[in-house]
Amino acid sequence: MLTELLRFTRAHSLALAAPLSDEDAQLQSMPDASPAKWHLAHTTWFFETLVLTPHLNGYEIFDPRWPRLFNSYYESLGPRHARPQRGLLSRPSFAEVKAYRAHVDAALADLLPQLLHSAPADALALIELGCHHEQQHQELLLTDILHAFSCNPLLPAYDAATPARVSAPEQAWLKHPGGIVDIGHAGGGFAFDNEGPRHPALVTPFEISNRLVTCGEYADFIEAGGYREPLLWLSDGWAAVQAQGWERPAYWQEDGRVFGLHGVQPMDREAPVTQLSFYEACAFAEWAGARLPTEFEWEAASGLPGFAQAADQAWQWTRSSYAPYPGFKPAAGAVGEYNGKFMVGQQVLRGGSLATPPGHARPSYRNFFPPAARWQFSGVRLAR
Amino acid sequence: MLTELLRFTRAHSLALAAPLSDEDAQLQSMPDASPAKWHLAHTTWFFETLVLTPHLNGYEIFDPRWPRLFNSYYESLGPRHARPQRGLLSRPSFAEVKAYRAHVDAALADLLPQLLHSAPADALALIELGCHHEQQHQELLLTDILHAFSCNPLLPAYDAATPARVSAPEQAWLKHPGGIVDIGHAGGGFAFDNEGPRHPALVTPFEISNRLVTCGEYADFIEAGGYREPLLWLSDGWAAVQAQGWERPAYWQEDGRVFGLHGVQPMDREAPVTQLSFYEACAFAEWAGARLPTEFEWEAASGLPGFAQAADQAWQWTRSSYAPYPGFKPAAGAVGEYNGKFMVGQQVLRGGSLATPPGHARPSYRNFFPPAARWQFSGVRLAR
Amino acid sequence: MLTELLRFTRAHSLALAAPLSDEDAQLQSMPDASPAKWHLAHTTWFFETLVLTPHLNGYEIFDPRWPRLFNSYYESLGPRHARPQRGLLSRPSFAEVKAYRAHVDAALADLLPQLLHSAPADALALIELGCHHEQQHQELLLTDILHAFSCNPLLPAYDAATPARVSAPEQAWLKHPGGIVDIGHAGGGFAFDNEGPRHPALVTPFEISNRLVTCGEYADFIEAGGYREPLLWLSDGWAAVQAQGWERPAYWQEDGRVFGLHGVQPMDREAPVTQLSFYEACAFAEWAGARLPTEFEWEAASGLPGFAQAADQAWQWTRSSYAPYPGFKPAAGAVGEYNGKFMVGQQVLRGGSLATPPGHARPSYRNFFPPAARWQFSGVRLAR
Amino acid sequence: MLTELLRFTRAHSLALAAPLSDEDAQLQSMPDASPAKWHLAHTTWFFETLVLTPHLNGYEIFDPRWPRLFNSYYESLGPRHARPQRGLLSRPSFAEVKAYRAHVDAALADLLPQLLHSAPADALALIELGCHHEQQHQELLLTDILHAFSCNPLLPAYDAATPARVSAPEQAWLKHPGGIVDIGHAGGGFAFDNEGPRHPALVTPFEISNRLVTCGEYADFIEAGGYREPLLWLSDGWAAVQAQGWERPAYWQEDGRVFGLHGVQPMDREAPVTQLSFYEACAFAEWAGARLPTEFEWEAASGLPGFAQAADQAWQWTRSSYAPYPGFKPAAGAVGEYNGKFMVGQQVLRGGSLATPPGHARPSYRNFFPPAARWQFSGVRLAR
Repeated sequence: MLTELLRFTRAHSLALAAPLSDEDAQLQSMPDASPAKWHLAHTTWFFETLVLTPHLNGYEIFDPRWPRLFNSYYESLGPRHARPQRGLLSRPSFAEVKAYRAHVDAALADLLPQLLHSAPADALALIELGCHHEQQHQELLLTDILHAFSCNPLLPAYDAATPARVSAPEQAWLKHPGGIVDIGHAGGGFAFDNEGPRHPALVTPFEISNRLVTCGEYADFIEAGGYREPLLWLSDGWAAVQAQGWERPAYWQEDGRVFGLHGVQPMDREAPVTQLSFYEACAFAEWAGARLPTEFEWEAASGLPGFAQAADQAWQWTRSSYAPYPGFKPAAGAVGEYNGKFMVGQQVLRGGSLATPPGHARPSYRNFFPPAARWQFSGVRLAR
Repeated sequence: MLTELLRFTRAHSLALAAPLSDEDAQLQSMPDASPAKWHLAHTTWFFETLVLTPHLNGYEIFDPRWPRLFNSYYESLGPRHARPQRGLLSRPSFAEVKAYRAHVDAALADLLPQLLHSAPADALALIELGCHHEQQHQELLLTDILHAFSCNPLLPAYDAATPARVSAPEQAWLKHPGGIVDIGHAGGGFAFDNEGPRHPALVTPFEISNRLVTCGEYADFIEAGGYREPLLWLSDGWAAVQAQGWERPAYWQEDGRVFGLHGVQPMDREAPVTQLSFYEACAFAEWAGARLPTEFEWEAASGLPGFAQAADQAWQWTRSSYAPYPGFKPAAGAVGEYNGKFMVGQQVLRGGSLATPPGHARPSYRNFFPPAARWQFSGVRLAR
Repeated sequence: MLTELLRFTRAHSLALAAPLSDEDAQLQSMPDASPAKWHLAHTTWFFETLVLTPHLNGYEIFDPRWPRLFNSYYESLGPRHARPQRGLLSRPSFAEVKAYRAHVDAALADLLPQLLHSAPADALALIELGCHHEQQHQELLLTDILHAFSCNPLLPAYDAATPARVSAPEQAWLKHPGGIVDIGHAGGGFAFDNEGPRHPALVTPFEISNRLVTCGEYADFIEAGGYREPLLWLSDGWAAVQAQGWERPAYWQEDGRVFGLHGVQPMDREAPVTQLSFYEACAFAEWAGARLPTEFEWEAASGLPGFAQAADQAWQWTRSSYAPYPGFKPAAGAVGEYNGKFMVGQQVLRGGSLATPPGHARPSYRNFFPPAARWQFSGVRLAR
Repeated sequence: MLTELLRFTRAHSLALAAPLSDEDAQLQSMPDASPAKWHLAHTTWFFETLVLTPHLNGYEIFDPRWPRLFNSYYESLGPRHARPQRGLLSRPSFAEVKAYRAHVDAALADLLPQLLHSAPADALALIELGCHHEQQHQELLLTDILHAFSCNPLLPAYDAATPARVSAPEQAWLKHPGGIVDIGHAGGGFAFDNEGPRHPALVTPFEISNRLVTCGEYADFIEAGGYREPLLWLSDGWAAVQAQGWERPAYWQEDGRVFGLHGVQPMDREAPVTQLSFYEACAFAEWAGARLPTEFEWEAASGLPGFAQAADQAWQWTRSSYAPYPGFKPAAGAVGEYNGKFMVGQQVLRGGSLATPPGHARPSYRNFFPPAARWQFSGVRLAR
C-alpha cells in the first residue's frame, strides 16, 4: 500500500504540472509562493536527502550542486538558496527537474522492496512522510500558480474546462453539547506530528454552521460596506485593509466576476467564498453576528450529522492560533523542523479544499497560515 | 474608595513623570512607544471624553483641538494624529498638559460626589476603568522612557538611586495535578473585559518553576551559543535574530553591564532577566529542556505554595496567544475597542513587573505584546 | 572684523532659537532635518574640534562624551550618533547646550586676540569658516523647525507677528548676450571651496525672468491640472507625485492658506512660491513654456539691471547638478569633507532666501539639495 | 540602407536570444532589468505602435491585450503593466512573442517599400529610431540576462566558448589643449535627440588616459583597502558600500574569479574592469590621484591619436550628470518621452561596450545610468 501511495503521489504531482509551460513552471509571484518546478524538485530532494542517501547503498546524488537549491527551510540540512529568489532558477530546466524526479523514482523503486523486506520502520515512515509532504506541495503548487496567473493581466486559466456549479445546502445551525472531547489524531494511519498527542479538551456548548459562507453572502457583506467599517475588524485587519487597499477577496474582479483555476468566471453565488484572509473571515463573522469556531470546536463538530462541506471546498479559518498540543515534542533530527518551529504568528485552518489531494486531509488535520494570507482556498464556517 | 483610587492614580502619574525634563517627556523612540507627555494627556483625554463630556453638565472641553492629538486608537471617537508622530508634538507643552490634567481633575472632583449620590453604575464603572487604564499607561510611561533613554549614547538614569539587589530563591519545580480548573476573573473587584467570562478549562498535569529565570542563567545560555544555534529557535524568532542582529537582551551592554531604570549597572546574576522577546523566552526554554507555561497553567499554578516572583519582578511570557475566552463579547460603544480588537498576533504575558503600579495586576490579568517586543519588563518562568 | 563676525554670528543663533521652548528645540521631524538644539551644539562642536582643541593651549573639551553626539558627517573626526536619532537626545538639555556655547564662546574670546597677534592664517581661516558654517545652520534651524511645526496639527507659529506682504515687480525678460563669462568666486572676502576655482565658461544667449514665480502664478498651474499631467514632469518627479500624493507645495493647506514662519496665513498671490522641489520647479517651467536657468546663466545674469529678488526671498533651483568646477580640490584634513563629498545626486540652487542670514550669500554661492527636497525656501526663476 | 538596417537589427535580436531557453527568456532579477522575452516584445510593440498603426493601412494589432504589457514608460500611449512584474508574464509564451515579431516584421516589409516611394520623412525616421531603439535593448538584453544568471548559484554561462584575452596598451596620458570645442552630433546620420543641439563648449586643458583601468589595477585598489576607507568615497557612495556590503565589483567572486558572459573565468588582469558603479569609479580615481573626465572632455579627447578602447570594451562613467544641452527640446508626441524625462539623477557614460551592437555608438553618444548601477559593462577612463 505504501508502494501504491508513493507511485500515485509521485505521478499526481506531474499530472498537476502537465498543463504548465516551462515558463509557467518557473513563476514566483511573491516570496511566500514557489515555482511549480521548485515544488517538483523540492519534494524530490526530500526523498533523496532523507530516504535515499541514508538508506540506499551506493546511491549517488543526482547533482551535488542542487541540494542548496531545493532545501526549503531545514537549517540542519545545510545552506539554502534564498526563498524569494526561487523564481530566478531558470537552470536547472523543467526538463532536468523531470529527469531528477525519474532518477529518484527509480532509486525509490529499487529501495522500497528491500525496505519492505527488512522493515526498518523509520525508513518506511520517512517514505510515508515524504508522500504526505509531497501532497502538501501539490496543493501549494496549485495555489501558487493561481496567484502567479492572477498577476498577469491576461488572467490565464490553469484549466480551460467549464467549472461545475456548486449548490449550497440550506444554512442550518448544528448544536454541540460541549463537554470533554478528545482532540488530535487517534492513531491508525498516518498523521503529522502536530496532530498529537491526542488529549482531552473541555468545550463549552456551541452551535456551528452546517456549511460554508457563500459568495452571495459575502457579496452582501461588501455591499453593506463591510470593507469601510473599522469597527467590524480586528486592529491588524483594519490596518491591512487600509495599507493594501482591500475591497473584496483576492481574486474577485471589479466587474463582479471571479478568477480561479478555470480563469475568470461569473460569480457562483452559492459557491463557498475563498481566497479570504483570517481578518476578512473575522470581519464577516462579526457583521453576521457570529464568530469563527475554535479548532477544538471544529474537530468536535466535524462528526455531527449534517456537517457539510467539511473538506472538499475550502479550508476554514479557526479562531485558534497555531500552538503545540500538551506534551508535543518535535521528532529528533531534521524532520523535527517540519512543523514545530512555525508555531507562532499563524492561525489554524481546518478541513480541506478542492485543491487538496484526495485522501490527504483528516478531521484532526491542522493547516496553518499567517492571518493576512489570501492566496489559499480559505473560507469561513461560522459558529456562535 | 473610588475617590481614593482616582486621586491616587492621577497623582501617581505625575509622580512618575517628576524626574523627567520637558525634553525627556517628549521623547518617542519608536512607533510602538509614546512620549511621557502623551501618556499623561491621553489618560486625561480618556476621562474627559468618556466621563466628563457625557456626564458632567456644562463641562467644556479644555481645548477642542486636542482630542485628535490624544485619542489613541478609538475609531469610533474620531480622527487621530498618526501614532509614529506623537513625538513631534512640542505643543501643547508639558506645562499645558499638566494644566489639562488639573482642569480635568477638578471637573472629576466636581462630578464624583454627584455620581456617588445618584449612582449611575456605568459612569462610575467608566471612572474605575479610567483609573485602571491610567495604571496601564503608568507602566508604559516607564518602559517607553527607558527605551528612549537606551537610544541616547549617554544612557541617562531615570532614577539615580542605587538599585537594591534581588535574591533569587533556590529553583524548584512545583507540581500541579491538572484537571478542570476555573479560569478568568471571579467577580468582586475590577477586571478588564478580556479576563472573562470565567470558564472551566482542562489542564493536563504539569510542573512549573517556583521562580523566574535569572540573569545568570540567561548569561549561561548566551555563553553556550544560544544566539547562534538556529535549532533552538522558532522560525520567526531566528529570522528576528538575524535581521536585527540580536546577541543578548535589549538592554544588556557589550561589557556585561545592564541598562535599566537606574542607568547602567553591574549585572545582578540573581535578578530575573527582563527585556526579553517571546522568541528569546522560547529559545531559552528549549535550551533548558523545558517550555513556557500556557496562560491557563500559569493561572492555575499561581496559587500554589512556593510560587514566588508572581507579579513583582517581570511579566512572564506564556505559550498562549491572545484570544477571546469562550463567550467573550466586547462592551458596546467606544469602550468595546479597548481589548477585543487586538486579539490576534500577540502572546499573553501573566504576572506583573516592578514597573506595574501597586494593586494593578491580578492572577487573572492578561497582558499581551507581539512576540518580537523587547522593551517591556518581560521575563521567563519555565514549565515542563 | 572677524571678532565682530564671530560675536554677531554666535549671538544670532541664540536669537533665532529664542522663540523656541525646550521641547521645540528638540524636534526632529525627518532624518534630513535636525533639532534646533542640535544645530546650536553642532556649530559649537565645530569650533571646539577644529579651532580650540588644536590651537588653544590647555583647552579642555566641555564634555568628552559629546563629540560623538554633535559630529555631523566627518568620517575623519570619529564615530557619530546616527543622524535620524538626533531628536532622541533629550540629554544634554537645551540649558546644557547653552552652557556649552558659553564655554566655547569664552575660549574663543581668549584665543582670538592671540591669533590676531600671531596671525596663523589657517586658524583664523577656520574661525571664519566656522562662522559661515554656523550661518548655514541658522537657515537650516529655521527650515527644520518650520518642517517640524508643519507636522503638528496645531500648526504653531514660529513668529506671531503679522507678515509683511510682498509686492512682485511686473514680470519681464532680461536678455543676456551669452559668450565667455567668468564663473566662481573672484577672490576678496570669504567663499566656500565649492565656489572655485574661478574659471571661464561659455554661455549661449538667453533670457531670464526679472523676478521669481509668484504664488498666484503657481496656483494657476495647479488649477490647470499641473499635478495631474504626467507629460509635464520628469520621470522621477512624476513618480514622486504619485508615491507621495503631492497636490500642491509642501506648506499649502487644502483651504488655500499657506503655512510659514508666521503660522497659517492667507495666500499672498504676489509673494514668491516657496517650499517647492526641483521636480515641481521643472514641471511649472514646462507648463509655462520656459525652463530653469543653469547655474552659470544665473550667475552671469545676476548682475543685469532689473534682476530683482536675487537673494532676499527664495533660493532658486537651477538646471545644473552639483558637481566640481574644473580644477576643484577639497582642502586637506577634515575640512575637506565639507563640500566635495556631496557632489552627486543634488541640484544647485542660487540666490538666497528670507531665512538666509544677512551677508551670508554671494552671487557665486552654490546651495544644493536633492531634487525631491521640499522643506527649504526654494522657488523658481524662469529662463528661456 | 534602412531596409538593411531594419532587417539586420531585427534578426540580431533573435540571434542574441538564441542561446536562451524559454525559462531563461522570462527571468527578471530586479525591477531595473527586464526579461529577454520582454525586450523582444517591447521593441516589436514600438514598431507596431509608432509605425504600423499610424502608417500601414488596414494594419491589425497582433493582440489588443498586449500593448499594455509591452509599453515601457510612455505615459501618452496608455496604461502599462508594472515594471517590476515583467518577469511574471509566462503568457504570452516565448514562441508567441516570436510569432508577434514575425507578424510585425512582415507588416514592416509591406510598408517599407511604400514609404520609400512616397517618402514621408517622419515615418522613415520612426523606423530608423525603432532600429536604434532596438539596438539599445539588445545591449540591455545581454546585461539583464547576465544579472539574472549571476543570481543563480549555478552561475550558468550565456556563451560556453572560451573568451579571448584582452591585452591592454601601455598606460599613457594624452594631452588636450582645451579651448572652445564643438559638442554634440554634427549632423549626417542618425543620432538621438539628447545628442543635440550641437553647441560650443569651453574646456580647460586636461590630460586623459589612453586606455581603461584594468582588472589588475582595480584589484590593487581593493588590496590597498579601497572599500574600507570612507575618505575616498562620495558620501552617497560610502553609504552604498555600507548598506549593500560592497567589497568588489558586482561579478567578481570571492575566489578571485570573474563571472561574465562566458561564465566564471579566471581574472584577466589586463582586461578593463567592468560592472562598476559611478561611486566605485570615483573612489578608484581618487585613490589613483586622478579624476573622471567630464562628458565634454571625453568627447573632445575621443579624436586624439592613441585614444584606445574608445567604444569596444566598456562604457566609461563621466563626471557629468545627464542634463539637456542648451536649446534641447524633446520631439512632439510620444517620442518626446524617449530621453528628456530622464534628465535628472543620472550620470552620463560615454563610449560603448563589448555588448553594444556594431555601429550603434558614436563619439557624441550619451548613455546614462543612476550612480549606483552596477550591472552594465561600465568601467573607468581616468583624467587629470
